[in-house]
Amino acid sequence: MNRAQFDVLTIGNAIVDVIAQVDDTFVEREKLVKGSMNLIDEDRAEHLYGAMGPATEISGGSAGNTAAGVANFGGRAAYFGKVKDDQLGGIYRHDMRAQGVAFNTPAAKEGPATARSFILVTPDAERTMNTYLGACVNLSTADIDAEIVKSSAVTYMEGYLWDKPEAKEAFRLAAQIARASGQLTSITLSDSFCVERHRDSFLDLIRSHIDIVFANESEIKSLYKTQNFDGAVAAIRRDCPMAALTRSEKGSLIVRGGETVESQALPVSKVVDVTGAGDLYAAGFLFGFTQKLALQQCAVLGSLAAAEVISHTGARPEIDLGAHAKKLGLI
Amino acid sequence: MNRAQFDVLTIGNAIVDVIAQVDDTFVEREKLVKGSMNLIDEDRAEHLYGAMGPATEISGGSAGNTAAGVANFGGRAAYFGKVKDDQLGGIYRHDMRAQGVAFNTPAAKEGPATARSFILVTPDAERTMNTYLGACVNLSTADIDAEIVKSSAVTYMEGYLWDKPEAKEAFRLAAQIARASGQLTSITLSDSFCVERHRDSFLDLIRSHIDIVFANESEIKSLYKTQNFDGAVAAIRRDCPMAALTRSEKGSLIVRGGETVESQALPVSKVVDVTGAGDLYAAGFLFGFTQKLALQQCAVLGSLAAAEVISHTGARPEIDLGAHAKKLGLI
Repeated sequence: MNRAQFDVLTIGNAIVDVIAQVDDTFVEREKLVKGSMNLIDEDRAEHLYGAMGPATEISGGSAGNTAAGVANFGGRAAYFGKVKDDQLGGIYRHDMRAQGVAFNTPAAKEGPATARSFILVTPDAERTMNTYLGACVNLSTADIDAEIVKSSAVTYMEGYLWDKPEAKEAFRLAAQIARASGQLTSITLSDSFCVERHRDSFLDLIRSHIDIVFANESEIKSLYKTQNFDGAVAAIRRDCPMAALTRSEKGSLIVRGGETVESQALPVSKVVDVTGAGDLYAAGFLFGFTQKLALQQCAVLGSLAAAEVISHTGARPEIDLGAHAKKLGLI
Repeated sequence: MNRAQFDVLTIGNAIVDVIAQVDDTFVEREKLVKGSMNLIDEDRAEHLYGAMGPATEISGGSAGNTAAGVANFGGRAAYFGKVKDDQLGGIYRHDMRAQGVAFNTPAAKEGPATARSFILVTPDAERTMNTYLGACVNLSTADIDAEIVKSSAVTYMEGYLWDKPEAKEAFRLAAQIARASGQLTSITLSDSFCVERHRDSFLDLIRSHIDIVFANESEIKSLYKTQNFDGAVAAIRRDCPMAALTRSEKGSLIVRGGETVESQALPVSKVVDVTGAGDLYAAGFLFGFTQKLALQQCAVLGSLAAAEVISHTGARPEIDLGAHAKKLGLI
């Protein structure tokens, strides 16, 4: 790696979460698959918002949550993502910058509004996401600030970007610049349905352009079309220099060449809302990794951040994770 | 009372709360008086928002919280308040209607944006509010829908309206219509600084137009310029048919003519954010009162709602208070 200005740059869909508690019958009535992320159009967004109860608005977006998490740990984080020049866009930018994340992607002046995800949290703390991409569809190669990519130790991107051709091109460009500058590239597979939609393309990308893959159990199994987790682990070990695989309450597994590190999940007194668990695991892991900590420590920091974020509503940390990790002697 | 379509109509400043955790040094550095509500202009709003950390947006506004609480208990609630036709205004309207509150005050098409209150919550759970009134300044007598006032058993208004001459006129008009229709009028004194600003005017109003006053200990003492709570109680007993006086962990005191009812506060395992405690007390009390329950029961419902709202961030109930009260055998 060259000397880096940022530890982690993340690129993703800039989305304000609109979170409401619902019961299971609501999820059934709206014909939703619990735990999934659904892309919705404006009409559907209007319908769902009209049908759901009072909500809370919190900045979200998978890669945005990860950047916020890295900065919250005390890491140097940057973010590329597209909002519109509207009230929600202003809120999104404020929340990133207030967390210490460098976020300068210009806001769209025209076109659809800042993205929203209607996140329905059921009593079992599971979340079902319904995302209206809005202004995110305008993220393009023009938004890839090459200087920032070159000066970021890791460029991390969300698989969700693959759902729009322009964003996919932006992603590819950033990966090329990062690699050409001797920096690392990373991707989260985002969602098993997302993997389903883009399997071959994801595999090509991972094999040729990615250094670190983040995935949960169902995503990595979906990538290799297998029900066998061990088989999927063996496959990703061959295909990518490093993978961090999360398994909910079973903890996580890191594979890097011949090396394998297993880590336990941390106990949570009450799981309130699982939104952001994977995003914050990636934040903790990448913070540790860019501080050159041992893989075991990186995994523990990931678990620590995931445990915090699922203990409350919303996908951004509510405590100072850096101070918390220091108090526990982890960093 | 005539037969009513609504149990409670509330009128107030329609405000989206922008809530952030801060430490005490932030409050000191910004020269704020902890626990107070400060009216701020656009420049100050920009400064404070830039200085504060990542935030959560939740619909608020004192009387808006009360209407939401009444509806959450299962009461029939209506609301008058002014938002702009912008994203935050849309969020505010959604949250009211999704809670079952009738809210049809037309949004302003021009002028300042929907109001925001930057609510800084310190580790002691105390909140310091900084309110940019924005579109609220346009609430006027034209927004008083006489038919709704006539058909609401109680019209409840927040003292904060008194800070703007047009809103004050709207308040007076609503009170006149309510009284002329044989319905009841109610006011919350809102804040001891608000009482300080409008003491004589509040006293005139209460003596001539108000049936039920809500106030906390410092507000009622400020109204009568006394340090003696018992003296203030005696004075309000003379000046108004009924008063519900809240005293934080000391519970509440209801005075109605010669009658006096004392009620305990309910235990809260952890106080997280006291925003909305008084608003939700009023909601529970007025719900019980319009269901013709005994004063003691009304006070308990008020305490129940206040205890719920201070146990989490934000000033709107997160549980079904009606179901909760039924389970406890209170209604």
